[in-house]
Amino acid sequence: MRTTGEIDSIEDRMRHATRGPLFVSFAAGDAGTWHIDRIAAVRGEGLAPAETLSIVEAGADHSQDSWRWILRGVTSNTRYTNRQESKTMTQRQQGLGRPEATRAALIPIRKNNAWWALSQDDRRRIFEEQSGHIATGIEYLPAIARRLHHSRELGEPFDFLTWFEYAPEHAGNFEELVKRLRKTREWQYVDREVDVRLRRI
Amino acid sequence: MRTTGEIDSIEDRMRHATRGPLFVSFAAGDAGTWHIDRIAAVRGEGLAPAETLSIVEAGADHSQDSWRWILRGVTSNTRYTNRQESKTMTQRQQGLGRPEATRAALIPIRKNNAWWALSQDDRRRIFEEQSGHIATGIEYLPAIARRLHHSRELGEPFDFLTWFEYAPEHAGNFEELVKRLRKTREWQYVDREVDVRLRRI
Repeated sequence: MRTTGEIDSIEDRMRHATRGPLFVSFAAGDAGTWHIDRIAAVRGEGLAPAETLSIVEAGADHSQDSWRWILRGVTSNTRYTNRQESKTMTQRQQGLGRPEATRAALIPIRKNNAWWALSQDDRRRIFEEQSGHIATGIEYLPAIARRLHHSRELGEPFDFLTWFEYAPEHAGNFEELVKRLRKTREWQYVDREVDVRLRRI
Repeated sequence: MRTTGEIDSIEDRMRHATRGPLFVSFAAGDAGTWHIDRIAAVRGEGLAPAETLSIVEAGADHSQDSWRWILRGVTSNTRYTNRQESKTMTQRQQGLGRPEATRAALIPIRKNNAWWALSQDDRRRIFEEQSGHIATGIEYLPAIARRLHHSRELGEPFDFLTWFEYAPEHAGNFEELVKRLRKTREWQYVDREVDVRLRRI
């Protein structure tokens, strides 16, 4: 059992990058490595209030009933990023667990049936050519580190859980990033969104 | 608990198409709706011999230890199909459970790390522009019905489980389809493949 509070070694990062899916549970309760500052329901149903969040990677046992809620996801290959975008991101991004990145956000979203019924090219067109999701994210690298977790195929209530980490001085940039994404055409397909803000304990 | 031995109603099919992920377990043992004719290891490690296969949809309990092996997967949105291809497939394809489709194949495959490290556009180029995976599959519609299940994000030993159903008179077409796909550039990224052939009991 590892938590993202620990700093990954380069070897760990390489392993994650090449070995593929990493299972991650975000468990809210009254003991954890991240203090929850606020939980806001942006669209649709929210999440129950909680004091702290634990991030548990790999196959740990979560059967303790002291959690308020647990959201599960799995990292995977990219679905929309093209070769040039991928190269730029790899060059600019930094990993999770940087000592200065003491602020975090967990943003679970669900997209509607209309989104999932679209073909790959139509989804890419909306996602990037119309909404600039990748290009916008790149603008905020390396300050805002990000890891995407897929939940839809795990039978979870959300489709994606995105985890962001940043230093306190970049909190304004993060607000701007979130605001820009929420105005996009892509976001019109989001039918549930919760915004959880945290600080490292 | 439903098995694909039952014929789906139109409502069921619509529900699956629009509601998204359907969890499916392929469980091999000595009781089931499909008789296993043969299990061939095409590349890498094979699977243990078994008499029959049960296909269990949704969240049934598989904790009985009488199964020889169980492979799990989940249906999902398409990942490479563009709008025109999607339209053609929808027009031509037929569902699982046709009374005349008494032959079936389960083909679990795993792709290597080099595949999963590719960007979306590079994967699409190999998958379709170079290998014609979608176009080839369309040629065999509606005779060869097909359902793809994703397993990689479930921590399974394979990345995909593809289930095919066809009438005995199309067995030759199916052999041809499989042979053509295995010769493609895409298939150079397959590092484990098993071919299970079955007939309805």
